[in-house]
Amino acid sequence: MDDNSTVSASPPTSSVAAVILAAGKGTRMKSDLHKVLHPIAGRPMLLHLLASVEALSPERVVVVTGAGREQVEAAVAPLGATTALQAEQLGTGHAVAQAAEALAGFEGAVLILYGDVPLVTTATMRRMLDRLGATDAPATVVLGFRPDDAAAYGRIIADGEGRIAKMVEFKDASPEERAVDLCNSGLMAVKSADLFPLLARVGNDNAAGEYYLPDIVMLAAGDGRASVVIETAAAEVAGVNSRAELAVVEAAWQQARRAQAMADGATLLAPETVWFSHDTRLGRDVVVEPNVFFGPGATIADKVTLRAFSHIEGASVASGAIVGPYARLRPGAVVGEDAHVGNFVEMKKAVLGKGAKANHLTYLGDAEIGAGANIGAGTITCNYDGFGKYLTRIGEGAFIGSNSSLVAPVAIGDGAIVGAGSVITSDVEADALAVARGRQEARPGWAARFRSAMKAKKAAK
Amino acid sequence: MDDNSTVSASPPTSSVAAVILAAGKGTRMKSDLHKVLHPIAGRPMLLHLLASVEALSPERVVVVTGAGREQVEAAVAPLGATTALQAEQLGTGHAVAQAAEALAGFEGAVLILYGDVPLVTTATMRRMLDRLGATDAPATVVLGFRPDDAAAYGRIIADGEGRIAKMVEFKDASPEERAVDLCNSGLMAVKSADLFPLLARVGNDNAAGEYYLPDIVMLAAGDGRASVVIETAAAEVAGVNSRAELAVVEAAWQQARRAQAMADGATLLAPETVWFSHDTRLGRDVVVEPNVFFGPGATIADKVTLRAFSHIEGASVASGAIVGPYARLRPGAVVGEDAHVGNFVEMKKAVLGKGAKANHLTYLGDAEIGAGANIGAGTITCNYDGFGKYLTRIGEGAFIGSNSSLVAPVAIGDGAIVGAGSVITSDVEADALAVARGRQEARPGWAARFRSAMKAKKAAK
Amino acid sequence: MDDNSTVSASPPTSSVAAVILAAGKGTRMKSDLHKVLHPIAGRPMLLHLLASVEALSPERVVVVTGAGREQVEAAVAPLGATTALQAEQLGTGHAVAQAAEALAGFEGAVLILYGDVPLVTTATMRRMLDRLGATDAPATVVLGFRPDDAAAYGRIIADGEGRIAKMVEFKDASPEERAVDLCNSGLMAVKSADLFPLLARVGNDNAAGEYYLPDIVMLAAGDGRASVVIETAAAEVAGVNSRAELAVVEAAWQQARRAQAMADGATLLAPETVWFSHDTRLGRDVVVEPNVFFGPGATIADKVTLRAFSHIEGASVASGAIVGPYARLRPGAVVGEDAHVGNFVEMKKAVLGKGAKANHLTYLGDAEIGAGANIGAGTITCNYDGFGKYLTRIGEGAFIGSNSSLVAPVAIGDGAIVGAGSVITSDVEADALAVARGRQEARPGWAARFRSAMKAKKAAK
Repeated sequence: MDDNSTVSASPPTSSVAAVILAAGKGTRMKSDLHKVLHPIAGRPMLLHLLASVEALSPERVVVVTGAGREQVEAAVAPLGATTALQAEQLGTGHAVAQAAEALAGFEGAVLILYGDVPLVTTATMRRMLDRLGATDAPATVVLGFRPDDAAAYGRIIADGEGRIAKMVEFKDASPEERAVDLCNSGLMAVKSADLFPLLARVGNDNAAGEYYLPDIVMLAAGDGRASVVIETAAAEVAGVNSRAELAVVEAAWQQARRAQAMADGATLLAPETVWFSHDTRLGRDVVVEPNVFFGPGATIADKVTLRAFSHIEGASVASGAIVGPYARLRPGAVVGEDAHVGNFVEMKKAVLGKGAKANHLTYLGDAEIGAGANIGAGTITCNYDGFGKYLTRIGEGAFIGSNSSLVAPVAIGDGAIVGAGSVITSDVEADALAVARGRQEARPGWAARFRSAMKAKKAAK
Repeated sequence: MDDNSTVSASPPTSSVAAVILAAGKGTRMKSDLHKVLHPIAGRPMLLHLLASVEALSPERVVVVTGAGREQVEAAVAPLGATTALQAEQLGTGHAVAQAAEALAGFEGAVLILYGDVPLVTTATMRRMLDRLGATDAPATVVLGFRPDDAAAYGRIIADGEGRIAKMVEFKDASPEERAVDLCNSGLMAVKSADLFPLLARVGNDNAAGEYYLPDIVMLAAGDGRASVVIETAAAEVAGVNSRAELAVVEAAWQQARRAQAMADGATLLAPETVWFSHDTRLGRDVVVEPNVFFGPGATIADKVTLRAFSHIEGASVASGAIVGPYARLRPGAVVGEDAHVGNFVEMKKAVLGKGAKANHLTYLGDAEIGAGANIGAGTITCNYDGFGKYLTRIGEGAFIGSNSSLVAPVAIGDGAIVGAGSVITSDVEADALAVARGRQEARPGWAARFRSAMKAKKAAK
Repeated sequence: MDDNSTVSASPPTSSVAAVILAAGKGTRMKSDLHKVLHPIAGRPMLLHLLASVEALSPERVVVVTGAGREQVEAAVAPLGATTALQAEQLGTGHAVAQAAEALAGFEGAVLILYGDVPLVTTATMRRMLDRLGATDAPATVVLGFRPDDAAAYGRIIADGEGRIAKMVEFKDASPEERAVDLCNSGLMAVKSADLFPLLARVGNDNAAGEYYLPDIVMLAAGDGRASVVIETAAAEVAGVNSRAELAVVEAAWQQARRAQAMADGATLLAPETVWFSHDTRLGRDVVVEPNVFFGPGATIADKVTLRAFSHIEGASVASGAIVGPYARLRPGAVVGEDAHVGNFVEMKKAVLGKGAKANHLTYLGDAEIGAGANIGAGTITCNYDGFGKYLTRIGEGAFIGSNSSLVAPVAIGDGAIVGAGSVITSDVEADALAVARGRQEARPGWAARFRSAMKAKKAAK
């Protein structure tokens, strides 16, 4: 969730650019989809991060790509971000250095972020920028966190005011340093004027032969310029390197979103069974029964009841409506005030008027249904002929008998009645009755004879 | 869950009255519904509490109301509880004092409870009353608890036998007192003869200017009369002030109920995904697959299998029946012994006879179905004409072909067969075959010509 | 889950037999089904254990039965295991002794296992056997574990190398011994030549009057022969004595299986809501939305999307297909490459060809559907006449109009079109159009008159 509630409205004091590292494809994901494009709450994780960056009104955003760069480029191009290629994987310092060209001429603060650390909020980014611009002018601002299990994270050795004495990789750390629980998230803020000169001095004289970004902290310190650490919650800087970690980040996002929904005045009977999308909107006094799934684009007004096992995406539900159980609202479904959509009912590009009801086993696709209309059980709008989609219009107060087929394009007038089991292929005028079904014929005793014959046949086998 | 299993059958030794505080509307709920009327397990939380009180056979029950009192009065009136108005919110002591008139003439023990602390059991209430009536005759009995995080709760300073030395609000507590983890739930038992005289002496000389109920403990102590604390589990006295706390209390209730169901001999494949109502009844050797939801009024006999994603309310299911997956049983659904209700099937006011089957995509409303009948896929009982509801009767051993519409009122005789896709509007006699559908016509080559035309049309665009 | 990933391919160095104790019916289960036959992940727990044993290629497997032995015998007979009756419940030592006859002539290592401790892996069994066969030749190998709460388990007092100094029942343990957290799982490995002579010396001079298996450790020690303990995780040796413990073991199994699915490259949006069966097969880049249930026999290929609320058993889904939400695939359902099965659709013994679609409210039973065919909403294959099941064949590229009933046996040719709402009883030739429905008739003004009459009737009441 992009919790920007504590962000001040004022823009950052200096120009901002962001460099987002997304060169690692993520082998442990075992996926043909690039790691940073795996979705959280229905949106690629990289796009979560870009949205949080966007709220800073950055002058430039550079995504550093590598393996699978075509996928990443295609995803970020529509958002106006530029990309820079890291052709070889030579470490984080090297990766950031690839953004030099894209940032040529830029003067201001550079945020260094990671495409697989998607939940960092705008508020945290702004805290980093504010600290960088503070009067003591640190060389760099490092984002630290204190995990439950510090494990093999690099440690930050800092004093009580956050001034960094040392950054140390876990494998190089002394027992005393390993006992420190303040860890390095990798995220940094550095002025552009400092960043690239410092990076140019980073060496690769280490076991992996890589250029490490954190080395710039020590290089700046050697120049007599201090760096500082600011802290955030471990969950905010959780990274995604496997599907299991993806599930953990998704769960963290969902948990926060559920809490927000309840704080805003919705009842979730079983919060842990409600799945939100990144853009779900939920009103006050909404009641959500267990197991409701929101795909992207759902808007639920006040006093709506969403019953169990409903699946809602790209749909809006107006005040007082009752949806489900087992209702499936697809994109373009619009449920009117106090309308009812019941069990095993699917709506797609369909408007259900105020107080109208479609309560059972129904498909409403490409349809406009007037206020107060009643759609009987088993009604199907036959909207597709294999080539095009066609519209069904049902007037106000109309009554569609159960198990009817409405073959679009077709219009049922206001107040009209369609007899149960009818196949309607021509328009029905207002207040008329339309019936289209076979005549009932009876064959007395036939069933008894059939059973005898079938039993005899079985016995003969 | 109203776990009264440890309650002795004998009535309390003296008369009992209960005062239930419900004057706070609950702003943090952000709801138009009064806080104490938000449901737990499908029943308003206040009614959970009233049911537990009722088991004590109290002489009088007084609910103290304030904001939103019309809602509360309407809810408790049918239960025979009286209400007393607290016009101004001047503290818990003041609130209890408002019950004085309603308790005029009453002599016995008064239990002081809270409408937003709904899960307190009858057994605990009885323990409080028994302690009040013990031979050492304490002035008051206070219910204490030890939460995981004592946070800002008021503390009870007591000796090893529960004799209270001091009740102290958190903000007034010394560090030593704050280190005590025994907290005050607010629930008390006091003899009526003591309660109101003590309350009359409570002052409001504090920061909030409120009259605090716990002050009576210290006032009694000043009279040389000891009070005692008895303890209960923190979960039992969890209060509800927000939707998040409502979800926590609901979850606690559900967890206890699930454990009870398993202890009684039901298998819940994934207990945390089964939601019970306050009155759900479940037999032995019932198997419940994941994600089953019980609304109010469900009764499930022994050896029933409830498959995944079923939604059951106001319905009874007899021994050996198989229900679901995706079965929706609504009020009045009665599933007979060894009957089957399958996927995407809805029943409402409908009886399915012994061994009968309705396995697929069916709506049975206002229907009586005989033993051994087979209801084909897609069958709809057309029970509503926009004004009234009508009955469909299906005889024993009848066979309803798939996709049939049965237009009620209508009766299908024993052993009759209805041809697939029929719309049945007249009664069908026993052992007869009834068919009501159109004659099949073929237009050779039409489909091929249609496709050519449509493709040409597209190409022309 | 039978995690045998770390098992070496080489057979054990000596012959192996297994004795599985399953004499206790499990009163606390409150079930008519024998405890060891209650399923975990859709398979009786005893069969989980037998499958893990089978991977050792044991020479003999003996299941010791008692109460409810008919059920157990019927379950294990098809697997080639023999049974031995423990007529009286005289303790674990006595139970194992009942296997003596069945193991007559067997020379090698005997594993002692428990039918209600079902998740022990082959790898752990092999570690026990390897340790028994090691050069220091211990008399017995005991499997120990360290639970979070050691509670009343028997303790193992051992040195740093696992040499056992003492086995002690909790009730007989000193405070120092109780402080030890290494507990006895009851599982053992003993050479057959040692086992029965040692058992013959076990006495029943204790409060319960039972013969305890662990006593053989102390008897061997008295002979100067050491026993050793090896350890495993507590979850692996969790036992099942109640439905609640059954749910705990099921949950542990599911959690491990979900982690494996994610490690193998599937995305589970909400892992804790996906239920696997013992034999579920899941490909790479499969996406599983919340609340998907796998019954036995599901095979899901790469790049399949399983949407929320799907229920899949005995079915296979080919690469690129999209299933659900609310799709129910029953045994014999075969979903082709890139095919779509949508909401409220049930398939049973039905093949859906490559790229074919059945997206809404449909029942496909005993059907073969060609590539690219489109099955309209509400289509029902009428496959049953009360006696037999019949086949529906739908050709490639055919288009079945919505709400059609296909009365099997029936064949729809390639490229044919069936008009919406038709009841098809005769074969339709390729590229033809078939329509079978009533003619539409209109009665202008009828609906208005009906409403007036009904309202007048109501008013007259």
